[in-house]
Amino acid sequence: MRILRLADYKKSPNIPRLLLRTIFSAACSIPKPCRLSPFPCSTPDLPHSSCRNIHSHSGPSRYPILKAEARPSPEARTCRQSRAFSSHLLSNPDHHCGVAPSPRPTPLRCRNLDPLGLAPPLGYSNIAVSLAAPLTLNNKQQPSHRRTTHSQSAKMTVPDSFPHKHKVAVIGSGNWGTTVGKVIAESTSEHPDFFEKDVQMWVYEEKVRVDGETRNLTEVINTKHQNTKYLEGINLPTNLIANPSIEDAVKDATILIFNFPHEFINNICRQLKGKILPYARGVSCIKGVTVTDDKIELICEFIGEQLEIYCGALSGANIASEIANENWCETTIAYNTPPCDRHVANGNGQANGNGNGAYEEHRDSRGQIVKTKLTPVPEDYPPLDHEVLHTLFSRPYFTVSMVSDVVGVSLGGALKNIVAIACGFVEGHGWNMTAKTAVMRRGMLEIIQFAREFYPETIQPATLWEESAGWGDMIVSCTAARNWRYSKMAVERGVSIQEIERTELNGQKLQGISTSREVSSFLRARGIEDKYPLFKLVDGILDGKVNVNDIPSLFRKN
Amino acid sequence: MRILRLADYKKSPNIPRLLLRTIFSAACSIPKPCRLSPFPCSTPDLPHSSCRNIHSHSGPSRYPILKAEARPSPEARTCRQSRAFSSHLLSNPDHHCGVAPSPRPTPLRCRNLDPLGLAPPLGYSNIAVSLAAPLTLNNKQQPSHRRTTHSQSAKMTVPDSFPHKHKVAVIGSGNWGTTVGKVIAESTSEHPDFFEKDVQMWVYEEKVRVDGETRNLTEVINTKHQNTKYLEGINLPTNLIANPSIEDAVKDATILIFNFPHEFINNICRQLKGKILPYARGVSCIKGVTVTDDKIELICEFIGEQLEIYCGALSGANIASEIANENWCETTIAYNTPPCDRHVANGNGQANGNGNGAYEEHRDSRGQIVKTKLTPVPEDYPPLDHEVLHTLFSRPYFTVSMVSDVVGVSLGGALKNIVAIACGFVEGHGWNMTAKTAVMRRGMLEIIQFAREFYPETIQPATLWEESAGWGDMIVSCTAARNWRYSKMAVERGVSIQEIERTELNGQKLQGISTSREVSSFLRARGIEDKYPLFKLVDGILDGKVNVNDIPSLFRKN
Repeated sequence: MRILRLADYKKSPNIPRLLLRTIFSAACSIPKPCRLSPFPCSTPDLPHSSCRNIHSHSGPSRYPILKAEARPSPEARTCRQSRAFSSHLLSNPDHHCGVAPSPRPTPLRCRNLDPLGLAPPLGYSNIAVSLAAPLTLNNKQQPSHRRTTHSQSAKMTVPDSFPHKHKVAVIGSGNWGTTVGKVIAESTSEHPDFFEKDVQMWVYEEKVRVDGETRNLTEVINTKHQNTKYLEGINLPTNLIANPSIEDAVKDATILIFNFPHEFINNICRQLKGKILPYARGVSCIKGVTVTDDKIELICEFIGEQLEIYCGALSGANIASEIANENWCETTIAYNTPPCDRHVANGNGQANGNGNGAYEEHRDSRGQIVKTKLTPVPEDYPPLDHEVLHTLFSRPYFTVSMVSDVVGVSLGGALKNIVAIACGFVEGHGWNMTAKTAVMRRGMLEIIQFAREFYPETIQPATLWEESAGWGDMIVSCTAARNWRYSKMAVERGVSIQEIERTELNGQKLQGISTSREVSSFLRARGIEDKYPLFKLVDGILDGKVNVNDIPSLFRKN
Repeated sequence: MRILRLADYKKSPNIPRLLLRTIFSAACSIPKPCRLSPFPCSTPDLPHSSCRNIHSHSGPSRYPILKAEARPSPEARTCRQSRAFSSHLLSNPDHHCGVAPSPRPTPLRCRNLDPLGLAPPLGYSNIAVSLAAPLTLNNKQQPSHRRTTHSQSAKMTVPDSFPHKHKVAVIGSGNWGTTVGKVIAESTSEHPDFFEKDVQMWVYEEKVRVDGETRNLTEVINTKHQNTKYLEGINLPTNLIANPSIEDAVKDATILIFNFPHEFINNICRQLKGKILPYARGVSCIKGVTVTDDKIELICEFIGEQLEIYCGALSGANIASEIANENWCETTIAYNTPPCDRHVANGNGQANGNGNGAYEEHRDSRGQIVKTKLTPVPEDYPPLDHEVLHTLFSRPYFTVSMVSDVVGVSLGGALKNIVAIACGFVEGHGWNMTAKTAVMRRGMLEIIQFAREFYPETIQPATLWEESAGWGDMIVSCTAARNWRYSKMAVERGVSIQEIERTELNGQKLQGISTSREVSSFLRARGIEDKYPLFKLVDGILDGKVNVNDIPSLFRKN
């Protein structure tokens, strides 16, 4: 067992946040499940449900000491429970959690913790965590807003606030990039404790006509605060700064948001290499995977590898223009916090507790140790973890759920486009909603089969069943988005989908088509295309080998 | 360990079916997970993936002997693996499975077995099952079509075919009842080995005008072979016999299909009590649950209890008129085969192998032993199990998936209507598809939370995530069905939903409204309504306490 976190803190409103972080950190250690154990509490018979205070069991401090330990547990298959708990606390800032010891190993009481009761009882032991009303503080106990850490009985004090804040840069400024830029710039304004206010957005410079004049797009964005070319009519925050120089935009940025068409990845990564902070972290809003006959690679991991940083992924049932208009929707961010960044509530960087200051190695989505040794985010920045990213992306109209499963989020975002094409075909063919739903269900099963086959080490199927990046995105893609709409149109008009791309999309390509071709070729190269009948079917139709009219008979097999 | 099945059979096309039954039987023992162990095979070094033959390890027979054993395994949480495997075999009748021993405990290799790779590795051991090409038989090995059983080294022979076939009765003849009657009568014609051809359908007698004449509905159905009142224009099989006498319709029926509006349940059960075979089994197509402040009860279990039989449930993304028109869709049947009926391939009725002829008790959806002692289906009928029911309900246009989880299927079918009402409200309010999808996702999470809270013993959340009765039904209900359509209309027109029931539905009630009221009252009685924010919200809107205009702000909470 290794000590993951050790915190000595005052009874203050910071308690929940600190404890939350502790739990978060444990939750982030997927695929390593963990147990949390507190020090024994001085009121061991306090009922869990009313446990409001935490006391130290020993030591001179009159302030509570909390120790959380993490160790792999064979019974604990996932950390979804911690995650659900953390999400609950995040969405209920007026709740806090108390910790009481349990005389014997006790499953974490998920019904109390998880508002959706989703988490199965896991192998947690020796802890009972319960929610309680906010602490009422008298003046004497007013929080000091200082964070104290405790290690090996010695106290360390860290400053009130972090000397550095995270600087965020958005790379890309199309419809979706500008929308995410707006979301993020609103957040950074609201959370000066975590972030620098100004958000740099790299804009591929081009001339636009505005008010009868030809001007640079960056200049229009920075003066008119609208991206008139790609997101017309939406007012952007003034702290979203358009920058035509990609190098300048990412300078000193600790958080990079990648958001551009995925064909530019190689080129942009080349430009960025060596120009970013070594401890920068990324979130890719580019849905998908790169597939060749030889291999399949998650786009976020490709970026991470190229830039020698860690990069997570964002995906969900999202339509850029809807979010830009502040119509409510949900999204999912997958971010498997690197072990070297898990130094919460412990200023000495030895949070992983092996005693020698070395961090556990970061592993990729295939469970392999990442070749590039990551540079930890320095401790004078707020810890770059689920909480910080949740804060950065959350808006009242944009609900964010954090997971660690980059595979589920990436594959869901990419492969659902194949299913959307299939749905367009069957609907164009005159099938009804019940049949289309069956196609969606089978498509989701094939996506999960694919993830299990090629990423068995880290896939969490619950990401696809439960999250916006899973079924949510599937439903929207198959009922309201491009791939579905134009494949349906092709069948209805009796023309090829390529013809529709020419006539309706002005030559733009449908993502689902290329994904279908790449994935089918990848499966064929392994001789397993028959295991994925729906993917094969879509490819066959695109090839002209299967007629759309044949779909019913192919599906009707019992 | 108890011996569940023991079969001695010839190398024949029947092998897969018999083995399938063995596996099925084990799979049906949910919530008791099971292990399957074969006799050691004479070619122990045969690679699993190419194992095509099964040999007996001892005994005089030159034909293979297979023994399957079942015992609870602490590691094995569900039997979904067997189920997925069984489904695969069912849908691929040209595949068979071979069994080879494994020198040491080996997880069942789910990738080979489960075409969708859904099943997690469970606690199966000492077996490796693989799929192979169909057996090629030479003439000498032609199947005898005799089923032989083997028990305690003594062989018993049962006849070529069963002396009795199952007689099926459909109780109810509305739109959905007649559709299911059509499906079933087509199947019974096609499968004389399992079923009597004629299917009795109880019809509530009424006068109808047909071709200018006033006639009895039963007479019209039996002569014109159309249900002109409730399913106009659809030709019914001639072996679907309308019967105005409910007692006569169910006489000698071993399979009863319940399909009528759920307000008639009490009355119909009263009429049927004592009039049916003691060993009849039921399938309820009536979606839902009965909820009072005191308790919640699955409709299928209520029927089973009233009639002292076992009754499963059918639900899925189904619209009666679509199925009647033979447009393809999928459904899910939940049937937890009672232990006393698991006497496959063992004519002596002691299949459960405790040696004293007594059967394991049947347990209900709460894991409780069912009070009424069930009468086993006699052994001169085909075993009434997943395979027989799958055969009975499957049509080329109607794909059936079998599960044992009656809770998931019943609650999914009932509670999704509350979510559909919510979706109608938000869509009527002008929200877009991404927001509606978020409501659906949250609704599904609440349904699973509800199931976990009130049926923790038997709920299999995968039923809701994976099956047509889960997400499939949810999507159709929230995009193409009544509850959604009319609640949307109410908001769009700015009138109450009761007003819509009056003006548009001719006084008919929307199921989602009563389900919402009942479930909310049930949750309030336990003081836990806040744990179900979506259910509470719908109830609040129906009460007029929450305005539809307030939905966005209620949902927007991060």
